[in-house]
Amino acid sequence: MHHRLTPLLQPRSIAMIGASNNPARIGGMPLDLLKTFNFEGQVYPVNPKYEEVFGYRCYADIESVPEAPDLAVLAIGAADVTAMLRRCHARGVKAAIVYAAGFAEMGGEGVGLQEELERFAQESGMVVAGPNCMGFANLNTNAFTAFATVFKNVPPQGAIGGSGPSGRSGLVTQSGNVCSTVFALMRQLGVEVGHFINTGNEACVEFSEYLDYLAQDEQTDCVVGYVEQLRNGQRFIDAALAFAEANKPLILYKAGQTEKGSEAVRSHTSALAGNMAVYEAAFQQLNIIQGQDFTQMADIAWLSGFRHRTGGSRVAIVTLSGALGAILADKFIGAGLDVPTLPDNVQQALREGIPDYGMVSNPIDVTGNIVNNPDFVRSVFGVLAKTDAIDTVVIYANGSLLDRMAEPLMEICKENQRLFVAIDTGKAKCREQLANAGIPVFTDIGRATQALAPYCQWLARRESVRHWAELRRQATGANVERQLAGLDEYQTKLLLAEFGVPPVPEMPAANADAAVEAAGRIGYPVVLKVLSADIAHKTEAGGVRLNLQDEAQVRAAFQAIMESARSYAPDARIHGVLVQPMSKGVAELIAGITHDPVFGATITVGLGGVLTELYRDVSHRILPVDESMVSDMLHSLKAYPLLDGYRGKAKADVGAAIAAIAALSRASQALGAAAQEIEINPLQVREAGSGAVAIDALLLAR
Amino acid sequence: MHHRLTPLLQPRSIAMIGASNNPARIGGMPLDLLKTFNFEGQVYPVNPKYEEVFGYRCYADIESVPEAPDLAVLAIGAADVTAMLRRCHARGVKAAIVYAAGFAEMGGEGVGLQEELERFAQESGMVVAGPNCMGFANLNTNAFTAFATVFKNVPPQGAIGGSGPSGRSGLVTQSGNVCSTVFALMRQLGVEVGHFINTGNEACVEFSEYLDYLAQDEQTDCVVGYVEQLRNGQRFIDAALAFAEANKPLILYKAGQTEKGSEAVRSHTSALAGNMAVYEAAFQQLNIIQGQDFTQMADIAWLSGFRHRTGGSRVAIVTLSGALGAILADKFIGAGLDVPTLPDNVQQALREGIPDYGMVSNPIDVTGNIVNNPDFVRSVFGVLAKTDAIDTVVIYANGSLLDRMAEPLMEICKENQRLFVAIDTGKAKCREQLANAGIPVFTDIGRATQALAPYCQWLARRESVRHWAELRRQATGANVERQLAGLDEYQTKLLLAEFGVPPVPEMPAANADAAVEAAGRIGYPVVLKVLSADIAHKTEAGGVRLNLQDEAQVRAAFQAIMESARSYAPDARIHGVLVQPMSKGVAELIAGITHDPVFGATITVGLGGVLTELYRDVSHRILPVDESMVSDMLHSLKAYPLLDGYRGKAKADVGAAIAAIAALSRASQALGAAAQEIEINPLQVREAGSGAVAIDALLLAR
Repeated sequence: MHHRLTPLLQPRSIAMIGASNNPARIGGMPLDLLKTFNFEGQVYPVNPKYEEVFGYRCYADIESVPEAPDLAVLAIGAADVTAMLRRCHARGVKAAIVYAAGFAEMGGEGVGLQEELERFAQESGMVVAGPNCMGFANLNTNAFTAFATVFKNVPPQGAIGGSGPSGRSGLVTQSGNVCSTVFALMRQLGVEVGHFINTGNEACVEFSEYLDYLAQDEQTDCVVGYVEQLRNGQRFIDAALAFAEANKPLILYKAGQTEKGSEAVRSHTSALAGNMAVYEAAFQQLNIIQGQDFTQMADIAWLSGFRHRTGGSRVAIVTLSGALGAILADKFIGAGLDVPTLPDNVQQALREGIPDYGMVSNPIDVTGNIVNNPDFVRSVFGVLAKTDAIDTVVIYANGSLLDRMAEPLMEICKENQRLFVAIDTGKAKCREQLANAGIPVFTDIGRATQALAPYCQWLARRESVRHWAELRRQATGANVERQLAGLDEYQTKLLLAEFGVPPVPEMPAANADAAVEAAGRIGYPVVLKVLSADIAHKTEAGGVRLNLQDEAQVRAAFQAIMESARSYAPDARIHGVLVQPMSKGVAELIAGITHDPVFGATITVGLGGVLTELYRDVSHRILPVDESMVSDMLHSLKAYPLLDGYRGKAKADVGAAIAAIAALSRASQALGAAAQEIEINPLQVREAGSGAVAIDALLLAR
Repeated sequence: MHHRLTPLLQPRSIAMIGASNNPARIGGMPLDLLKTFNFEGQVYPVNPKYEEVFGYRCYADIESVPEAPDLAVLAIGAADVTAMLRRCHARGVKAAIVYAAGFAEMGGEGVGLQEELERFAQESGMVVAGPNCMGFANLNTNAFTAFATVFKNVPPQGAIGGSGPSGRSGLVTQSGNVCSTVFALMRQLGVEVGHFINTGNEACVEFSEYLDYLAQDEQTDCVVGYVEQLRNGQRFIDAALAFAEANKPLILYKAGQTEKGSEAVRSHTSALAGNMAVYEAAFQQLNIIQGQDFTQMADIAWLSGFRHRTGGSRVAIVTLSGALGAILADKFIGAGLDVPTLPDNVQQALREGIPDYGMVSNPIDVTGNIVNNPDFVRSVFGVLAKTDAIDTVVIYANGSLLDRMAEPLMEICKENQRLFVAIDTGKAKCREQLANAGIPVFTDIGRATQALAPYCQWLARRESVRHWAELRRQATGANVERQLAGLDEYQTKLLLAEFGVPPVPEMPAANADAAVEAAGRIGYPVVLKVLSADIAHKTEAGGVRLNLQDEAQVRAAFQAIMESARSYAPDARIHGVLVQPMSKGVAELIAGITHDPVFGATITVGLGGVLTELYRDVSHRILPVDESMVSDMLHSLKAYPLLDGYRGKAKADVGAAIAAIAALSRASQALGAAAQEIEINPLQVREAGSGAVAIDALLLAR
């Protein structure tokens, strides 16, 4: 593989500009690490003060270095950085890391310095990481460029000489502290880390480009990250889809999950945290595992090392106690996993190994007696390894009880690819043996739940993200040229109707006579609504009259609407009224397109009305969406039962609602970013078989 | 202290009936433990087969034992139990433990055996624990009566000879497996356990009685429990209030938190799990900490050992990195704690110790530089120890960074009672030293959050539970004798009005003339509703006509209602109609009283309408409630903003709504259990200053 970031992340030669012979200083620590861990490439310290540092020959300046190094690390002050980068570039250096703080994050002069740096990188094509970053470590080649004390306290797997197993997990964070903290936790669990990346200000290389590198890197098969701000949403989406394509889990902690958190992030990096609800939806859509805390992220990275085994979100729970089974079921279901009742034939098969007072429905209580009989253990696990009613088997047995089940369990796992997971809150001796046989052992119920649930959901969602990737690939982008500014409600619905969003039957009327004529065609009772692209709040403007029964009422209403509207907005261009039938559906939805600053065009669907907002009962997706995705969105609403014949009410025409909303997505795709916002509110969903129609619609042009 | 359970839980002498000399058998294991851990009381094995077991002289039968033992432990089969208990009782034994399974949990004959056992216990007054239990351990006296292998693998703090520190935590569970598992986790954390109690079938001594004992026990100052079913809700409430009175935290895991969990519990103990929403509300009202998992419960027990320090739910977060501060704030706020922005004067005082690029608003980023200057550390912690803007200080610093802050931190803690908590995910050397100085150190962010949040909320809620205990003490119980069966809507509202629930102004009318007369008095437009105690669903019966504008419409409506109602329910006694004004409030609430099978009379408050149910946006309390509690209930609704001038709407008369709902509570208290259910639906809340009135009400008599 060759990637733009290869010289940065896998350098064969490293120049250290501002080298120091003090391992406690930033110009010395990386050299100390390179020497200690025996980096096999070339190392060129640069500092006119020294002849030699850490056993490496030291050069007076970058020009004297005997070859063009892949990478230069700049341990010098902010003011001198760009000038030095020019010299490095002239010397043929391909990539650089800038440690110095004092750029955009400081405001004032720093902003100018960063702009200068960015311009240079753009013009020269040099790959410049940072500034304000702590550097990197490629732990497979022992290319240490980070001033991170953590490597002294928590040795990487390669240890001295670099002969250890290769690191399959990548770590990429927007905070140096978080990078070190998570690295230590991953190493505690024995996870081999390949890349340690701290991105800093991301002036020239941003978060998603590192992700792209790691998605393509053959040695990396799982990435843990920490992100405060995404600067390039489309590249991020591409990277996430590359992870999906490569079947690698991407586990990201997004800072700013609550308002208070956001505040701290803002002060920290002057980064604006995005809308968390959209982030969450996007992460789920892209099958990114949203990290909840550092330990959990390390646990998932560790768990994903068992990816050669087939698992998923339907879990069988095996315990030696009904109470413990109940507790695990509570936890797993609460975390979003399924604990399905097993089919009769499976229950019968299990019963052959389980005493009458045990349980076979799931959770499965094999009772304490079973451990004395390895054949029973084999029989129970053999059944669970083969049934297609579940994907994953979780065994909770403590200490010696687990030890006594270990042999038959390992035998079954040898013969079957199913994911078996054990939990032992005691001190079982078989833990390592089980892990080597492909059976992860957790030592805590809470940690097991918090890691297993998102990991199993990740396994289960792999298909849907591929579906969306294909949909996105096929999307053609904006292809309809149309004047969008100043569309009134009628024109907006006509436009949307072209894409398949059915409008309520309606007619515009410029005067009272035309309104009466329209009412006659539509059929009484009717509604009159002021028609003006300049009046957004029609009701407030006195511009809506409901339930008009006859010609006289229509004429009076027309008159009244015109007067109210003119007095409310004297300058508005008023095109008369829109005449609609009075009609009532089973439910009213809101469906809208907005352009998220990070993820671009997104669609939001919810039930209409004020409570939806208070209960935040809405569903978001990045566009495009098709019918199956809209169906998932509607089903995910807590209010969905209202569409489905709740409490004896009529069932709504959900299929028609889905078709209308998918059509809205197509409209948005075809119109492109010029249609900044499009909203249908309400989309009236009628009784099953009677369709769904847009009662009102709004389009805001860019 | 003397308690009915003292002979059971603190026996001075123990007879073991069915003694064995095999430490692997249930008749042997407790004797082995008593000997190993050197119980100082008398031990009397009973078995005609042996002369001596485990060095204790063995007796042929209970009658031969030289004194009347406090406690007899029965390691014999179910069928022989009650007969043996009779003999024990005759010998003067005060308490007994029955290990045997085969009682109610087995159904069939077992049910009869358990009934016989219960009758005997009732008649004799003997304290009988179990059956189907694994026994107990008093770890302060080394009175082991449990056949639990855990004590061999996980030594109690007293160790051999019982000279260790006394156990201040109690453990009481409805599952033996859970008891052993949680015990092991508590011991891993160094928590000293005083009582290990497994309750079994609770035929004669039930869960709440053990709680009552532990609430009164001077040595116990914290209890961890696991409960599947509460058999006596009122005694449970009393016990919980005794814990509150004694300032002891009670941490309970309630099994059956999800449907699947409930299923497993049912099969396990044939116990019916209560309504989880009511359980959760009751736990909060009683200030019981609801356990989430075993590790978390053990963590909280450990944390509560630092109760001599003053803490609460307003937390200051101190880190050396803005990113970590943001993450902790996310976690803490998500878990329900407050992370308030500090007042200006506090921020200014902090600034004296914190560099410009650090943060002082909360989370506080003291920056990495601070650790090199102990005076800065002292200054920052000194400010945080004294400000009354917060209750608890959480410091996140890893390894050597925490070590370098330890000395000044301990100095500040010596001078101030405030609760300081540290989190170190590295390997700080100062952990034990800090703990000894009253500063708990967590080693994981997730565990810290999951333990701290409920513990700090427990601290903060202590006042409100005392408030309710006083309210409950003052409640007089049912004191109004009234015929409650067959009340119609009008009569129900008249009855509730006596207690202060304002009805909408309304008049019953037996015929059309009376309806017209009433409408004239009330003022048009009016509503007519059929008046019959026998018709619950008025709308369905065609019994409601809205918005009647004049006499003619009222007459027609009366006629139509009578016809519809008679055809809908030919046998119903119809008293004519109720005439009400058409009126519209800002919002409509539902307020209802039901009798929960466990907790008795409970009140539920929510917004009216179908969505409330789908979003489960309701608040429950055990009665009685007063105005301040009702106010809390309303404020806890997600829909509360609708009452508070949401989006420019009028503010509702929340005070009037609170008064009406508190009056409903008083009515329920006065009428007692005879009023099985009372519901006001809707309670119309009008604009501020305009009151709140019951539009409809229903009373179901027992």
